[in-house]
Amino acid sequence: MNVPFDKLDKAFENRVRLQVMSVLVVNDKYDFNSLKELLGVTDGNLASHLKALEKEEYIVVNKVFLGRKPNTNYAATPQGKEAFKRHLDALEALITQQKSS
Amino acid sequence: MNVPFDKLDKAFENRVRLQVMSVLVVNDKYDFNSLKELLGVTDGNLASHLKALEKEEYIVVNKVFLGRKPNTNYAATPQGKEAFKRHLDALEALITQQKSS
Repeated sequence: MNVPFDKLDKAFENRVRLQVMSVLVVNDKYDFNSLKELLGVTDGNLASHLKALEKEEYIVVNKVFLGRKPNTNYAATPQGKEAFKRHLDALEALITQQKSS
Repeated sequence: MNVPFDKLDKAFENRVRLQVMSVLVVNDKYDFNSLKELLGVTDGNLASHLKALEKEEYIVVNKVFLGRKPNTNYAATPQGKEAFKRHLDALEALITQQKSS
């Protein structure tokens, strides 16, 4: 069985990004602080990975005001959800191949 | 279902390294040029990832002479096989969680 390694997406070659996408594809949106707390990462670390995912247009950022307080939240884009699914499918093929060998 | 993201191993957060390990865990050993050809990567790229895996003691390098020709081959270590299995198990948990949500 040939594993489609070329289907692995460089944008998801990182634990934080895997976690961000796995949260955003099953939630409509998630704000920065909740993501930071959930993942247990620093502001800077999270911000850099969010920027990279945004640059790929896999997520979008939304800045709103809750009362007077600014709130930044993120959502997965359709192409982000699709790309993440393709990435997981390629990983699943790798796991299946490893288990059958 | 909680995904054990902390079980994901930074050493495998790269497509080339995933490919190297998926080859070495199902083969006793594999030489540099065959790996390079199989993965379709440059000498330098492959060498840097092999060095990183070697540093983690996930693979060992073996330099022999075939007749007069030097041959460098690589093999996964027991801890490398174990670490790779743990990594794939954590990825499998992520995939299962995504499919059930």
